[in-house]
Amino acid sequence: MSETKSPLAPAKFPELPAIAGVRLAAGSAGIRYKGRTDLMIATLDPGTTVAGVLTRSKSYGAPVGWCRDCLPGGTARALVVNSGNANTFTGQAGREAVQRTAAAAAKLVGCAEQEVFISSTGVIGEALAVEKIEAALPEVAKSLAPANFAAAAQAIMTTDTFPKGSTATAEIGGVPVTLNGFCKGSGMIAPDMATMLGYLFTDAKLPAAVLQQLLSPANERSFNSITVDGDTSTSDTVLIFATGKAGNPDIASAEDPKLKSFKAALDRVMIDLAQQIVRDGEGAERFVTISVTGATSSAAARRVGLTIGNSPLVKTAIAAGDANWGRIAAAVGRAGEKADRDTLAIAIGGTLIAEKGGPVAGYDETPVAAHMKGRDIRIDVDLGVGHGKATVWTCDLTHRYIDINGSYRS
Amino acid sequence: MSETKSPLAPAKFPELPAIAGVRLAAGSAGIRYKGRTDLMIATLDPGTTVAGVLTRSKSYGAPVGWCRDCLPGGTARALVVNSGNANTFTGQAGREAVQRTAAAAAKLVGCAEQEVFISSTGVIGEALAVEKIEAALPEVAKSLAPANFAAAAQAIMTTDTFPKGSTATAEIGGVPVTLNGFCKGSGMIAPDMATMLGYLFTDAKLPAAVLQQLLSPANERSFNSITVDGDTSTSDTVLIFATGKAGNPDIASAEDPKLKSFKAALDRVMIDLAQQIVRDGEGAERFVTISVTGATSSAAARRVGLTIGNSPLVKTAIAAGDANWGRIAAAVGRAGEKADRDTLAIAIGGTLIAEKGGPVAGYDETPVAAHMKGRDIRIDVDLGVGHGKATVWTCDLTHRYIDINGSYRS
Repeated sequence: MSETKSPLAPAKFPELPAIAGVRLAAGSAGIRYKGRTDLMIATLDPGTTVAGVLTRSKSYGAPVGWCRDCLPGGTARALVVNSGNANTFTGQAGREAVQRTAAAAAKLVGCAEQEVFISSTGVIGEALAVEKIEAALPEVAKSLAPANFAAAAQAIMTTDTFPKGSTATAEIGGVPVTLNGFCKGSGMIAPDMATMLGYLFTDAKLPAAVLQQLLSPANERSFNSITVDGDTSTSDTVLIFATGKAGNPDIASAEDPKLKSFKAALDRVMIDLAQQIVRDGEGAERFVTISVTGATSSAAARRVGLTIGNSPLVKTAIAAGDANWGRIAAAVGRAGEKADRDTLAIAIGGTLIAEKGGPVAGYDETPVAAHMKGRDIRIDVDLGVGHGKATVWTCDLTHRYIDINGSYRS
Repeated sequence: MSETKSPLAPAKFPELPAIAGVRLAAGSAGIRYKGRTDLMIATLDPGTTVAGVLTRSKSYGAPVGWCRDCLPGGTARALVVNSGNANTFTGQAGREAVQRTAAAAAKLVGCAEQEVFISSTGVIGEALAVEKIEAALPEVAKSLAPANFAAAAQAIMTTDTFPKGSTATAEIGGVPVTLNGFCKGSGMIAPDMATMLGYLFTDAKLPAAVLQQLLSPANERSFNSITVDGDTSTSDTVLIFATGKAGNPDIASAEDPKLKSFKAALDRVMIDLAQQIVRDGEGAERFVTISVTGATSSAAARRVGLTIGNSPLVKTAIAAGDANWGRIAAAVGRAGEKADRDTLAIAIGGTLIAEKGGPVAGYDETPVAAHMKGRDIRIDVDLGVGHGKATVWTCDLTHRYIDINGSYRS
């Protein structure tokens, strides 16, 4: 947790309403950090379904392996997350630590161990002092309450400079439902989700299979459409829990038209959370929205956008307030997707700068230079080779990124 | 061209001997830089064969397109390179600029335009003042001489802090041959060669087709095995010219055993040049050698090595002198190649730190911490899933990288 809040942070953490069937608590297990919380627990009423998206890293952490094994069960009764230690690349001891955490939480809640979902975030490759978690859990559980979303969001932070939450309401078959989410960033943010943990809670009644079919595409449009530094983490986890307390009509398929409002709410919350992660990118001073159109597909558009968003040369130029569109053109060229030098168009801050293979004749840099001085930078790229489009979000690359990542372990 | 020479620079530019059939000259065309040379020309005697490797970027610059069109001809009589402007993303005007440069050089040398090879390096997306090149060429050509390799290497620099050259001798069928090379970096250095221009000259007598079959694999082991920032450029060009003046026996195939010594010399020169580019990586303070073994293939090993070498988290840790092997494990996990958390072994500076999915028991960080304080960092990774191996080279990511790339256009 950094001392200085990101200049791109929202004014405040939003009011997250209670979700029937969900209680949360946060406390201090003393794993690594001093003077702050580092352990959160959520309990979920019986009947809660779960779906998830996990890192594709082959060096995945022990908690990710545990969640992957538990997800097919489709039900969840507890979530335990610690910060300070990622319990990753910790061998057999790491797997035992997860198992012991699950056993402790299951005992507390009165459920099967496989209904306990676990995440750890922080340093890689150091043994997790699981006994500290075992010791703290019963004490922390005493403060379980529906209103504790902000405290939970706070406890899972690592280098984050602000807690990240979002909420939306929707209706399913005329029955109102609520969706809350919180997450943490803030380094190693890249396609395939990177070091981010995100948790969504709803009172909607949805089977686990439907929940999964809703989560995966929404994840593509949100957490898989952001990048800070191109580094994908070993601990990426997004989980969604549905308690069913809203009592909406039964839904058997993700294609059910009754889900329209819920899908929009899910997109809204997940994109809001994803953007907050970028706004807290390590050292970020500018928030960058990159819209790519005219690609051969939306996946191709997303890859081109992420290649631009990952380019250190583009990001350092933005940090310097330099509208260096040549570096954007270079990133497009190496993205590995269909593109044509002579149909490419690039606009910055709404001003068309380049088209048809060259600079726009008589292009006036003044409004662009003014735009580059702001906090929110907009880059629009049209490839001119198809109809696919996507939007991705990133931040600039500043000296503070190097300061933060050069000193994280010490 | 930066004021401060990289701390990783070699002591001096090597003595490059004359190559029969090659003359070089450098001068000032006043394209962008003040008080330095920015134009070089090499003339090649009749009978010179040529081969090349060019960027795969779809936003390739006009000179790259020109070289691609000329390479099938297989013969070369001149090379013209300017620095300060890349003539990339410059539309029809850019293509005309290349054509006019070729026409001017062809007139000077008395050859076909298609025998003139051209490169431009520098800012992207600004019109190249080709009339300055046309005006300067006859004047610069007056100083053509065999001994001008150092001056040529100097003229093609952009943000390079030192000129880069290398030389080797070999024999083909008992006949001695010489190979010289020079190149420039130093940003946008990545797989697929990045913003680098490299030129090799030999007096060996080799058909263009054989030359191409020698160049491509050597390029994989050298310029395609380095990375500074993962950005691939629009102007990457490596060309090899063979004047045939050595009078070695005829060679009809790249598999001819008489080429053994020449192949070794080519590897030596190209790897030396590639390493010099890394040693001049923008802001580099440490030179990093990453050897990957136990991969499913050498290509897989190279990709894993480059993923480690491109990780901003690994590179900022090295800049801080931090042996953060967890970030190396994370990079291996996301490289997209076969890897197994539980067979992975990582050594830094020759000290085994992690193996079989966890830290080495009783591992002493003292010698590793001492190693991390040096200029030359060695990382060895064994994946334990096959027999493929490769070595790649990179540098650390420092504050100066951001300074240099945030101010390049101004």
